[in-house]
Amino acid sequence: MISFELSNMLILISTGIGLLWAVYNAFKLNQIKIGTPNQYNNFQDDYQDHHSQLLLEIASHIESGAAAFLAAEYRYIGVVIILLALLIFFIVEPVLGQAWTTVAFLVGALTSIISGFIGMRVATFSNYRCAYCAQTKMTDAFAVAYRAGCVMGFALVSFALLSLTILLGVYINWFIKDYRDFQQLFEAIAGYGLGGSVIALFGRVGGGIYTKAADVGADLVGKVENDFKEDSPNNPATIADNVGDNVGDIAGMGADLFGSFAEATCAALVVCSVSPSFYYHPTTFYYPLLVSAAGIVVCFIVSIIAFVGEKENFDQVSNALKYQLILSTLLMLPALYFVANLTLPERIFGLAPIDRQPIHAWLCTAVGLISGCIIGFVTEYYTSHSYRPVQEVAQACGTGAATNIIYGIALGNLSTIIPVFLLAFTAFLSYSLLSMFGVALSALGMLSTLTIGLAIDAYGPVSDNAGGIAEMVGYPQDVRNRTDQLDSAGNCTAAIGKGFAIGSAALVSFSLYGAFITRASNSLNNHPLTDLGVNSPLVFLGLLIGAMIPYWFSAFTLKSVGRAAFEMVEEVRRQLAERPGIRDGKQKPDYDKCIAISTKSSLQEMFAPGLLVILVPLALGLFLGPTAVAGLLPGILVSGVCMATSSANSGGAWDNAKKFIEADLCEIDQIVKGKGTDEHKAAVIGDTVGDPLKDTSGPSLNILIKLSAIFSLVFANVYDKSAWLLCAMTTMSSGCPA
Amino acid sequence: MISFELSNMLILISTGIGLLWAVYNAFKLNQIKIGTPNQYNNFQDDYQDHHSQLLLEIASHIESGAAAFLAAEYRYIGVVIILLALLIFFIVEPVLGQAWTTVAFLVGALTSIISGFIGMRVATFSNYRCAYCAQTKMTDAFAVAYRAGCVMGFALVSFALLSLTILLGVYINWFIKDYRDFQQLFEAIAGYGLGGSVIALFGRVGGGIYTKAADVGADLVGKVENDFKEDSPNNPATIADNVGDNVGDIAGMGADLFGSFAEATCAALVVCSVSPSFYYHPTTFYYPLLVSAAGIVVCFIVSIIAFVGEKENFDQVSNALKYQLILSTLLMLPALYFVANLTLPERIFGLAPIDRQPIHAWLCTAVGLISGCIIGFVTEYYTSHSYRPVQEVAQACGTGAATNIIYGIALGNLSTIIPVFLLAFTAFLSYSLLSMFGVALSALGMLSTLTIGLAIDAYGPVSDNAGGIAEMVGYPQDVRNRTDQLDSAGNCTAAIGKGFAIGSAALVSFSLYGAFITRASNSLNNHPLTDLGVNSPLVFLGLLIGAMIPYWFSAFTLKSVGRAAFEMVEEVRRQLAERPGIRDGKQKPDYDKCIAISTKSSLQEMFAPGLLVILVPLALGLFLGPTAVAGLLPGILVSGVCMATSSANSGGAWDNAKKFIEADLCEIDQIVKGKGTDEHKAAVIGDTVGDPLKDTSGPSLNILIKLSAIFSLVFANVYDKSAWLLCAMTTMSSGCPA
Repeated sequence: MISFELSNMLILISTGIGLLWAVYNAFKLNQIKIGTPNQYNNFQDDYQDHHSQLLLEIASHIESGAAAFLAAEYRYIGVVIILLALLIFFIVEPVLGQAWTTVAFLVGALTSIISGFIGMRVATFSNYRCAYCAQTKMTDAFAVAYRAGCVMGFALVSFALLSLTILLGVYINWFIKDYRDFQQLFEAIAGYGLGGSVIALFGRVGGGIYTKAADVGADLVGKVENDFKEDSPNNPATIADNVGDNVGDIAGMGADLFGSFAEATCAALVVCSVSPSFYYHPTTFYYPLLVSAAGIVVCFIVSIIAFVGEKENFDQVSNALKYQLILSTLLMLPALYFVANLTLPERIFGLAPIDRQPIHAWLCTAVGLISGCIIGFVTEYYTSHSYRPVQEVAQACGTGAATNIIYGIALGNLSTIIPVFLLAFTAFLSYSLLSMFGVALSALGMLSTLTIGLAIDAYGPVSDNAGGIAEMVGYPQDVRNRTDQLDSAGNCTAAIGKGFAIGSAALVSFSLYGAFITRASNSLNNHPLTDLGVNSPLVFLGLLIGAMIPYWFSAFTLKSVGRAAFEMVEEVRRQLAERPGIRDGKQKPDYDKCIAISTKSSLQEMFAPGLLVILVPLALGLFLGPTAVAGLLPGILVSGVCMATSSANSGGAWDNAKKFIEADLCEIDQIVKGKGTDEHKAAVIGDTVGDPLKDTSGPSLNILIKLSAIFSLVFANVYDKSAWLLCAMTTMSSGCPA
Repeated sequence: MISFELSNMLILISTGIGLLWAVYNAFKLNQIKIGTPNQYNNFQDDYQDHHSQLLLEIASHIESGAAAFLAAEYRYIGVVIILLALLIFFIVEPVLGQAWTTVAFLVGALTSIISGFIGMRVATFSNYRCAYCAQTKMTDAFAVAYRAGCVMGFALVSFALLSLTILLGVYINWFIKDYRDFQQLFEAIAGYGLGGSVIALFGRVGGGIYTKAADVGADLVGKVENDFKEDSPNNPATIADNVGDNVGDIAGMGADLFGSFAEATCAALVVCSVSPSFYYHPTTFYYPLLVSAAGIVVCFIVSIIAFVGEKENFDQVSNALKYQLILSTLLMLPALYFVANLTLPERIFGLAPIDRQPIHAWLCTAVGLISGCIIGFVTEYYTSHSYRPVQEVAQACGTGAATNIIYGIALGNLSTIIPVFLLAFTAFLSYSLLSMFGVALSALGMLSTLTIGLAIDAYGPVSDNAGGIAEMVGYPQDVRNRTDQLDSAGNCTAAIGKGFAIGSAALVSFSLYGAFITRASNSLNNHPLTDLGVNSPLVFLGLLIGAMIPYWFSAFTLKSVGRAAFEMVEEVRRQLAERPGIRDGKQKPDYDKCIAISTKSSLQEMFAPGLLVILVPLALGLFLGPTAVAGLLPGILVSGVCMATSSANSGGAWDNAKKFIEADLCEIDQIVKGKGTDEHKAAVIGDTVGDPLKDTSGPSLNILIKLSAIFSLVFANVYDKSAWLLCAMTTMSSGCPA
């Protein structure tokens, strides 16, 4: 058992390490000067001058495009944040004039915004440097991309942990008069999670629509109508497509996982505050924070290893990335054991029917950590072209696009089986050990390697962008080959990251649900939750409607991508009609117009799905009370997890089946290969169908699952006060179930 | 309140009316003689002789193909039924040597088999007569197809009701010594529902794989590779395709809805037997039976109207069919009111917190009936090309197959919203009124117009087959036009029927779930259900796994269709290679070989999904006890309903978007139309993707939802005895949740 002071100190040290490492990597990136004589500048001067100029020009297009999106997004976010803050201030705060939840909400939102900004900045700062370094050595290019990932990962997690710790410290000093105040305090802290989640909504949904509107639009008009090459600088939508990678995959993924981290921590705090052992050992609440702190230190050590050794081919890069994941998981196991024994009291009581020890808390985190790792590799199995499932899909292209799609859907569906069993087992075991606190711990365990996960996730789009930039600049084919190999390795690990994001969303959401139940069952409520039975009519009603919400939500996001992509197609057609010289590079396309269209339509299109996430739990809660919401949330959760997994993996499989047919990666009987064949055309159709599934609607479901839960947690006392329809019905007929 | 005798009498009268009407229609069909001089034979003799001969020849191919499938299926069914009967006899029966459940199971299975046989027989008997009559008047052809539907619908429902009534009568006379025996008796009667459901598994899953393997296989090899026309007699897979319509849409749909009827009735009986008011008025259990009996009489009256008036164009036919549905719904409302007041005691107590009257029971049936009707028309809105959603999908074909598919998926997802809200509202309201008995009544109310529903459903494939036969025989184009219009009208109502089948499956399954809970909560059990809270770990585990099962199941069925279709493609390729004269009709294709392949592969391929439906609840129940199953069933239900609706409607929309592009049905800006255009090619890809979704995996999910529930109901006491894993865990750690 450690003191408040020591806990704070340990957290500060680890976040310090994380932030310093991020700054160091940023510094190393900044050392790569383009155009000035240096180690990479071993070409003759004219060539290098021309290409460097082009490189900087394209980079500045991407950078200003990303900045334009962020600026536009912040305006929307500003309005939404202010509206929600007012709503929270006037409705949720227990005493009028108090602002604990509101302030926590604002801090959470601000932290997420800053993290997103840093991620985006470092990505657009590194992508062209990666392309530049790829001229000489793949190892250097890899280092650039992975350093960018490290800046993003370590800055985000350290910064998030730091701001949460400071917030907690301030609140505890000002708020706490009695240990019983902790429960109310932690309920206020849940606002922090909500703030992070709302930004994640913009990042994932808005970013997801942006990236795929640009991608699908560019593909449709470029490849189908005009026979442009991928990333051709003559395609006016190309830059928007590259901006999209940063917007969707870096800012979106970062905000999503920041949300998971913030929500899991808040859920753990709310749930642990009701345990009697907490009254005796109030420092226990540092345990969830120290789990994340230990994660930063372990990931720091692991990430250093990434820069050791040569990375001159696909296998070396791919293995390096996978070892990062495996090694951080293995090292976390003892670290988590140490943290549990250091922080937790010897007897934890009041959470399970019998007393528990720190080792049980460790078991919860360990089972989360390991399932996260397995889910990641299962996802890789189903989406990598090195394994049978994707090869089967590629084979199905032999009988046309329709069979390709049928097999892809079937693959996505099959890929849900193991992750769902693992999640069910993890939730069951950790609940059995430590009730809902255990579930929150398993989520935190899964997220303890988040820093490495984020670094790898950010690595992908940076190297993808580098490839696009190399193409546009006109670097020789071997440069493009190097970035392609880096990108391929990133694709495999990106799939792992997606599986991981969904899995953690499920556990986080279940633990938030537990926190919601804890809060809504309070016997001081007007409508305390009493009958939560699945067979009770209100719970079943909520469950059925909840299971449908992911369908509704994903229909919105899919159609949004369709509409936004169509606007992009129209714009490109217009430009090509007005300036036909664009086609062969004689006239310059208007990249900024395409970027503006993606920005505008993505932010407009996210309005409906965003509203849906917030309004459905609110409406159900206001009209039918917390019992209906208690059915709604697990309905959304169980249906959303399956749909998100299936969408992401179907999409990933189609993408890689296409790559499998394009490249001669391995031999399989009866598959005709190569671009331009009928098989390839069928594969391209599958890939285009999969794009919005895997990068927009699938990942957006994570947000749906978590945001609806944290929103309900924060608004639990509002639901309790109302239940209008139910009250009316009960008045009409006294036999109505409450 | 009526007596046992009067109730029996009323049921016998209504089933008598139903059976007589079925026989009368069969007699009228038999009067149409082909080839002999009669009112239709007004062509010159040679022409008529040649065509009639061809007609009879093709008809006999289809008939023998269907018979071959049935014969093969019965062999498989026989084995499965015997195995299950043994399992029930030795494990489920409460006292060794008793056979109440086993006998009920066998009677249910046998009734379903006979019903399926009658349906298939009458369909293959009528389809060529329909084509024959289409030579002169559309009205006559319509009458043939609809008479066939009436034979099927009335025979099935009347026969089912009769066998159930007789079974009940026999059991009551032999079994009942005391009113308290009723509960055990009705639990045994649940075996009847299980029997029906197991046959439905074969009908829907096996039949669904058969029909789509033949259809997709014929399309892939015929249209894509060899440019055969639809239904070309030169395509060796054509007859198998036509057999498939009968196997999947007639026998499959019939078995599915028979299962719903049997299960809803059994659930109502089990649940009502625990109500104290039942002890005072034991004839109450006739109420569910009399609801169905009233349905037969109302549908009889309505169906007569169908034969009044001319049906010489699409609108007349389509309206006639829709009026059948609307009229039967409207007439049922007062009929149900009359039945409720006639049968139920003035005070119904013990089901809701306050006493209820017969009018509340009527409300339950009425709300089910009306939501069924609305769900049907919502389904039509989303899948008919007369409305905006399908037109949007057709428009998306303008940018290729990928956007077509994205929009189709989004449409399917959107189409779940209203049905799910309606079902949630229906379940909530009827539960609030009369607890789970109310839910069972709402399912029975929805199914009370089943006879008309089945007649319309069977009408579709008969007219579809008639069109195929007319093409193969080589009748002039105007004959084909007539059958096409009949078929189109049938397609619209088929969509209604599918929505209806899913909706009723959801309500039936929820009421079966209620019956399961009733049975598993019995305090005499070893592991009585106590904590059913959604937040309890075992329930949540079940819920999460349950939500995933539809994905697993549908992946199996989708891949099955793919594999079976591929075998069909191989066979056709072989035949065309060996006998190239087949291509232009100079050599005869070997239809029977193709039929044999469809039969064999469909029955083999249904093994895995069939096993899944039975093994998952069994395994979860055996290892983790009834509480886990109490989570599993609603998980399967809520996730399955959404997926089934979405799959069926996406598929229907793609089908009709294709038809919209083919025909000049109505004008829309910017849609290029006509066969052979790029838009049409994109639409064909969508249609092929949709085929297995709408006709195999979607409808099969109905079976999954219902069968898992009735299976668990019948095996509830087995789950109770075991829970091995849970017991082991509890022994290890006394803190393990029970």
